[in-house]
Amino acid sequence: MPTINDLIRQKPWMGWVIFFVTMVGTFLLGLLASSIMERRAEAVIAAKVKNDIQPFEGRWEEWGKYYPREYQTYIKTSDTTFHSKFNSSAKIDMLEKEPEMVILWAGYPFSKDYKQGRGHYYAVEDVIKSLRIGAPMKAGEGPMPATCWTCKSPDVQKQMNKLGISQFYEKKLSDFLGEIKNPIGCADCHDPATMNLQITRPALIEAFQQMGIDITKATHQEMRSLVCAQCHVEYYFKGQGKYLVFPWKNGMTVDSIEKYYDEIEFSDWVHPLSKAKMLKAQHPDYELYTMGIHAQRGLSCADCHMPYVNEGGQKFTSHHIVSPLAQINRTCQVCHRESEEELRRNVYERQEKINLERHKLAQLLVRAHFEAKVAWEKGVSEKEMEPILINIRHAQWRWDFAAASHGASFHAPLEVMRIISTGINKAQEARLQLAKVLARKGFTGEVQIPDISTKEKAQKVIGIELTKLEKEKNAFLQKYKTDWQN
Amino acid sequence: MPTINDLIRQKPWMGWVIFFVTMVGTFLLGLLASSIMERRAEAVIAAKVKNDIQPFEGRWEEWGKYYPREYQTYIKTSDTTFHSKFNSSAKIDMLEKEPEMVILWAGYPFSKDYKQGRGHYYAVEDVIKSLRIGAPMKAGEGPMPATCWTCKSPDVQKQMNKLGISQFYEKKLSDFLGEIKNPIGCADCHDPATMNLQITRPALIEAFQQMGIDITKATHQEMRSLVCAQCHVEYYFKGQGKYLVFPWKNGMTVDSIEKYYDEIEFSDWVHPLSKAKMLKAQHPDYELYTMGIHAQRGLSCADCHMPYVNEGGQKFTSHHIVSPLAQINRTCQVCHRESEEELRRNVYERQEKINLERHKLAQLLVRAHFEAKVAWEKGVSEKEMEPILINIRHAQWRWDFAAASHGASFHAPLEVMRIISTGINKAQEARLQLAKVLARKGFTGEVQIPDISTKEKAQKVIGIELTKLEKEKNAFLQKYKTDWQN
Repeated sequence: MPTINDLIRQKPWMGWVIFFVTMVGTFLLGLLASSIMERRAEAVIAAKVKNDIQPFEGRWEEWGKYYPREYQTYIKTSDTTFHSKFNSSAKIDMLEKEPEMVILWAGYPFSKDYKQGRGHYYAVEDVIKSLRIGAPMKAGEGPMPATCWTCKSPDVQKQMNKLGISQFYEKKLSDFLGEIKNPIGCADCHDPATMNLQITRPALIEAFQQMGIDITKATHQEMRSLVCAQCHVEYYFKGQGKYLVFPWKNGMTVDSIEKYYDEIEFSDWVHPLSKAKMLKAQHPDYELYTMGIHAQRGLSCADCHMPYVNEGGQKFTSHHIVSPLAQINRTCQVCHRESEEELRRNVYERQEKINLERHKLAQLLVRAHFEAKVAWEKGVSEKEMEPILINIRHAQWRWDFAAASHGASFHAPLEVMRIISTGINKAQEARLQLAKVLARKGFTGEVQIPDISTKEKAQKVIGIELTKLEKEKNAFLQKYKTDWQN
Repeated sequence: MPTINDLIRQKPWMGWVIFFVTMVGTFLLGLLASSIMERRAEAVIAAKVKNDIQPFEGRWEEWGKYYPREYQTYIKTSDTTFHSKFNSSAKIDMLEKEPEMVILWAGYPFSKDYKQGRGHYYAVEDVIKSLRIGAPMKAGEGPMPATCWTCKSPDVQKQMNKLGISQFYEKKLSDFLGEIKNPIGCADCHDPATMNLQITRPALIEAFQQMGIDITKATHQEMRSLVCAQCHVEYYFKGQGKYLVFPWKNGMTVDSIEKYYDEIEFSDWVHPLSKAKMLKAQHPDYELYTMGIHAQRGLSCADCHMPYVNEGGQKFTSHHIVSPLAQINRTCQVCHRESEEELRRNVYERQEKINLERHKLAQLLVRAHFEAKVAWEKGVSEKEMEPILINIRHAQWRWDFAAASHGASFHAPLEVMRIISTGINKAQEARLQLAKVLARKGFTGEVQIPDISTKEKAQKVIGIELTKLEKEKNAFLQKYKTDWQN
């Protein structure tokens, strides 16, 4: 076989061909290297951009000047069609969908109005519009404490810093109508000086302290869930000062939180039908997430709800927080090789099984409340009613824990089904006890349940005058627009 | 830099060094290639070995002559310590562990004796020793039909072939004490002519036919589950001829099988306490496996219970059928990267959650049976009892479906928890109805449940004379040894 030297000796122009081919190749390699280095540099610059964002800056657009990709994806959360297409969470009227809820929450603001949240973009607007906060026509009026604002806006930090934490909680929601305007945003999770993730709300830090955990030592991956856990948790307002507390002292399960509330004899309200001292569960999302396989495998909230995307030279975390089902290719399929259809089917199967059982529990609870009402009417003693009302309290707590938690039937399906199963047992136990005490008062028939087949009918049964509430609300919204919004 | 030629010119011995190094390297490569080819050849020969195994050959050792690896791993199933270490299935007395079972199965042979099976190796021995088959002192005696043999031995095929299928079922178990001796073995799943997997029992083929599925078209991977599904399923004995049928006409869920049994008004026995027409669930393993994520991801039974191993040049399927937890490195860890401890913990967590709820359901059912007994005693009418007894039947069916299925709480945890949850609801519904009918008869108190805290106490309550049964059994075993075993 001839060597290159032999070839060149025979055909001298071959040397030039080889020379130029090599030159072109080397030039192209150089271009590639330059592009890689440039992209890397761009990424480094982007990550270390110097900003002059002030502490407690609530306006997204101020942060967006320096972090356009994160900002631009975050404002996409305004588009709720994306939501509604995949998990139907675009302000669905839950009371219309499941009128039993009106009865279960009778005497509590949720029986007036409960729409599925539209996400962070609408956090302030949805609170203002909700019938649950009433129609406070001036500061200091209305049923809700300022504590309700805690998770709605980065402006809360500014107020807490100005007034002090407990001084903030003590006030009324209506005291801050003019001050709290920016919906949940950058400052809630990021330190403007370093852009590191940070916990800005005291309740989470205090809750972990109570469990003996120093949250300031959390890893970055843990922080990618903990910033969400500032709000997506079970909580209550403690005492007259309405201090925000996460009830985790005994643990995060439905049983240990129940034990906590029982020990301190806490209740959110007294049910007007059964007179049971009730607990309202708030979205225990973080708690249930920790009990599922994805958390156990080390995934954070952000891994599925804020997946990485690539744009130009930069890999960044999408801030378009949304159901993972909306972009399966960037979420589930990072680990799972199944088709989008199959993965979606797997999620829906879990949800459907759980929703069916949960609805059954709601129906049993409706019966229990009405049966307890009849028991009171027949003169059953407080002593006899006590264990019954505890069963109702515990059963509804379990129903609410499963119902209120966003995505729980996917996050921890077995745990949620277990919660519902124990709830069904307790609801039926209450009804069994009721049948016995009613029988002792001579009543062995079936307690008639009024027609609650629609939200309107159910609200009429418990005496809610929706038109009146809506009229007052409209007057408030008018005033809000002129006096407070701008 | 000098070329090799320059080097050789300077130091002529270098040429020889290079020559020998190259020679040695080439020789070693040759050895490696030979080894690879030899191993491959060995594997091919092993797979295509010519055997003279006769049809219906029930003796393992005859098959073992040609397939030593499969045989030698299969006989390892005799070692139950392997089992007991990891999933405690070495003939545990389930009635001692959960005495409630004695009450739930009162009037049915399972209340006498229910030990966790020791696996295929002991299939015949465990049947012979079980109190459930009684003590037939001659052919044609005893409570059990020949149908009971169907899944216990490859010798069944020979008998079915000789007598005809329904003619076999029609006989008594005791008719074949001398003929059926080899426990479940090679011939149950393999065609000796080709060693392909084959369905040898008619019930599975007929059940799929009823659902419009031609099982002869199943893929090899499907067959790796279907050979197990010949036996690891829910079944019943149809009519006087005790014909073996899988009740899948409406589908394989607990609800659709219940619907099937209700439609044909089938019951396994009448409960002596409540008089409810009961259903006994048999291990619906295959049914529940299909509802879990592992089946949905295309895994077969064999993938986890008979993992591949390598020995010498041959990769083969281990026939040491056992809990996947006993060899996590060959089962779970083929796909999952977590530690053995973590994977085992994940399985146990599911099992524990489910066992707790299942036990609760058992306790409710015990109450329901005794409360129904009191209702009959108080003169409640058959018409009033009817819906109550249907609830008891359906609730216990769900409990049994979850309890009888091996490994179900791992195979399909959410479905099993759902089944238990619906069972709890129905059991409590029955108790609620019972409280009402009892009240109408003037009884508003608590029905006293006798002490059933041990197997002995529970069996005494329902009138089982264990010592008598054991004495009869011993006489039978003596006779079996002399007359039938050899």
